[in-house]
Amino acid sequence: MHVLVIGAAGMIGRKLVERLAASPSALGGEIGRLTLADAVAPVVPAALRSVTTALTFDLAAPGTAPSLIEGRPDVIFHLAAIVSGEAETDFDKGYAVNLEGTRALFEAIRREGQREPYRPRVLFASSIAVFGAPFPEIIGPDFFTTPLTSYGTQKAIAELLLADYSRRGIFDGVGIRLPTICIRPGAPNKAASGFFSNILREPLAGKEAVLPVGEDVRHWFASPRSAVGFFIHAATMDTSAIGPRRNLTMPGLSATVGEEIEALRRVAGDKAVSLIRREPDPVITGIVAGWPTNFDASRAMALGFRAETVFDEIIRIHVEDELGGRLP
Amino acid sequence: MHVLVIGAAGMIGRKLVERLAASPSALGGEIGRLTLADAVAPVVPAALRSVTTALTFDLAAPGTAPSLIEGRPDVIFHLAAIVSGEAETDFDKGYAVNLEGTRALFEAIRREGQREPYRPRVLFASSIAVFGAPFPEIIGPDFFTTPLTSYGTQKAIAELLLADYSRRGIFDGVGIRLPTICIRPGAPNKAASGFFSNILREPLAGKEAVLPVGEDVRHWFASPRSAVGFFIHAATMDTSAIGPRRNLTMPGLSATVGEEIEALRRVAGDKAVSLIRREPDPVITGIVAGWPTNFDASRAMALGFRAETVFDEIIRIHVEDELGGRLP
Repeated sequence: MHVLVIGAAGMIGRKLVERLAASPSALGGEIGRLTLADAVAPVVPAALRSVTTALTFDLAAPGTAPSLIEGRPDVIFHLAAIVSGEAETDFDKGYAVNLEGTRALFEAIRREGQREPYRPRVLFASSIAVFGAPFPEIIGPDFFTTPLTSYGTQKAIAELLLADYSRRGIFDGVGIRLPTICIRPGAPNKAASGFFSNILREPLAGKEAVLPVGEDVRHWFASPRSAVGFFIHAATMDTSAIGPRRNLTMPGLSATVGEEIEALRRVAGDKAVSLIRREPDPVITGIVAGWPTNFDASRAMALGFRAETVFDEIIRIHVEDELGGRLP
Repeated sequence: MHVLVIGAAGMIGRKLVERLAASPSALGGEIGRLTLADAVAPVVPAALRSVTTALTFDLAAPGTAPSLIEGRPDVIFHLAAIVSGEAETDFDKGYAVNLEGTRALFEAIRREGQREPYRPRVLFASSIAVFGAPFPEIIGPDFFTTPLTSYGTQKAIAELLLADYSRRGIFDGVGIRLPTICIRPGAPNKAASGFFSNILREPLAGKEAVLPVGEDVRHWFASPRSAVGFFIHAATMDTSAIGPRRNLTMPGLSATVGEEIEALRRVAGDKAVSLIRREPDPVITGIVAGWPTNFDASRAMALGFRAETVFDEIIRIHVEDELGGRLP
C-alpha cells in the first residue's frame, strides 16, 4: 500500500504519521511506500524510514500535484492548507493553495485515471469554518455552509469538489470537518482560538495561562488523538455507506470554558486551575461570539466516527500523549 | 451607467436586454453604455443600438474576463453557463466555463479595483441545481447544498465565491437561485425538464405535446418575466439588507403537472388540453423524482423579490409575451 500524506509537517499530519509508524497495519494493510509532503520538511518516522520519501513542495506551483500523484498512492491524506488567519490576510495565497492547489490535486488524480484506471481513497481535512453565524443552537447535519472567512469559503468549495469528483468515480473521497482541536500541543499561539488549549496545556506544564473570555463561552472540541482517528477510520471504512454527501461533521464535545476549567481541576487539582489568569479581551470575545457552539454529528457517529464525550478525557489524552503521563 | 450582460444571447439574457430596451430606466439611471457578451452573437436591441457593443467571447479563454471588465461596468449580469446536460457530459468544459470562467470574472473585478477603486453590482444566475436529493418536503432557506450534478457543483462553488468576494468588498454581489423557468419559449427541447413547458407552449400554439410523467409530479416554477424581474430587482435593491448570505432562493410556484393542465384548461379550454399526449417515460420519471418540489423562499420575498402565485398567471404571461395575446 502506498500512502501519501500532504501536509505531513502540520500538527495533525505529524500525529497521523506517528500513528502509522506505531501501528503499521492501521490502514488495513502493510505500508509498502509512504510519501510525506509539506511546505516545510516533514519528519520521517524511524520505524518507516526505509519506505518513506519526504518532499518539500508548494502545492500551488504548476507540476506539484501531478508529481505527487505519479506514484499512484492508494490512500491520500490531504491535510495541507493556508490557515485561517493567513488566508484572510493573503487573499491570493489562500485561494492559490486552498482552492487551486486542491483542485490541481483532484485533477491530477483524474488525469492519472485517464491514463490507466486509478481510484484512490482521498481523505480531506475540512473545518467547521465552512459554517457562518448566525447559527441554530445545535447545527444539524443539513445546515448550509455560509462561511464568513476566505478560509472557510475555500474549505467549502473543496468539499463540493470532493463530492463531485467522488460522485464521478474519479476517487473515493471523504471530507472530514474537524472540530477545534484541543489540547493543541506546542507553544501558545496568537490564534483567536488559542486560549481554549492554552488554559489547559500551560497549567498542566506548571505555567500561567491567560483566559481572555468569560467562562460561559461554549465551543466544539476533539482531541488530536480523535482527529487522527477520524482520518484512519475514513481511510478504512466502507464508503458505500456514505452515499453522495461525502462531507461529514465529525463528532466532538460541546463544552464551556467553565467546564474545561472544572475538568482541569478534577484531573490536575486546584493548583493547576490557579495558574489561569483572567484578562478579558473584548476583541477575542467578539470573534469567538461568532463561532459555532454545538453540532448534531449523528451522521458521522452512525458511520463509526468517535470522539471524546467528557472533557476530562481530552485532558488525560494530552497528559498521556504529550507529557508522558506525568502531571505537574 | 455602463451595464454588462454576460450570456446575453441566452433565453433570460435576451429577455433582460429586451426589458432594458423597453424600460431604459429600469436600473434606476440612464444606460449610457451597454455591453452584451455571449459565446454566440447577441442580438442588439434597436432602442439601445447607439450605446451597445456586442461581443462574441469564450469566458474560459485567458484575457476574456479582464477585457470585459476594463470598461468598468457599473452593473454586471453574469448569466453565462455551460448548461446542466453539457456540463455533465463534458467535465472539462463545464469546470472551465462555470467555475474557472466565473472566478476569472471575479478576479478581473478585483484587479481592476486594485488599479483604481471599483465596486460594481454583480448579479449571478444560480440554480436550484445546487440542491441534491433527498429533500425535506419544503426546502428551507438554510438547507445545505449537496448537488448531484457537476453543473450544480459549479453553481454552488460560484455562490461561495460570490459571497466571499462580496464580504471582502470587491463587488456587491447577489446570487439568484432560479426556479425552473416556465413557459420556456422556443422549440421543444430534449432537456429532461422540457415537458413542464412543452405541455403548455405546444397546445397554446395548437400543437401536440408529449407528457412523459404522471400528473402528480410536483416542481418549482417561475415565468421568464419573473426571472428578468429578479435580476432587475437585485440590480437596484438596497443590498445592505441582505447581509453576508448573498445567495437567495428566488420565490416560485410549487405546482403539479395536474395543476399545470387544469390551469391550461382554464386559460385555453379543453381543446388545448386534448393536445397533451401521455407517453410515460420511466427514464424521465426517474430523473424528475430526484428534483426538488417546493421551497420556503421567505428570505427573498422579505427582500422584495416576487414571482407568480397561481399557474394561470404563468400561462397568461406566455400568451402576452410570446403569442401577442392570442389564444389558439
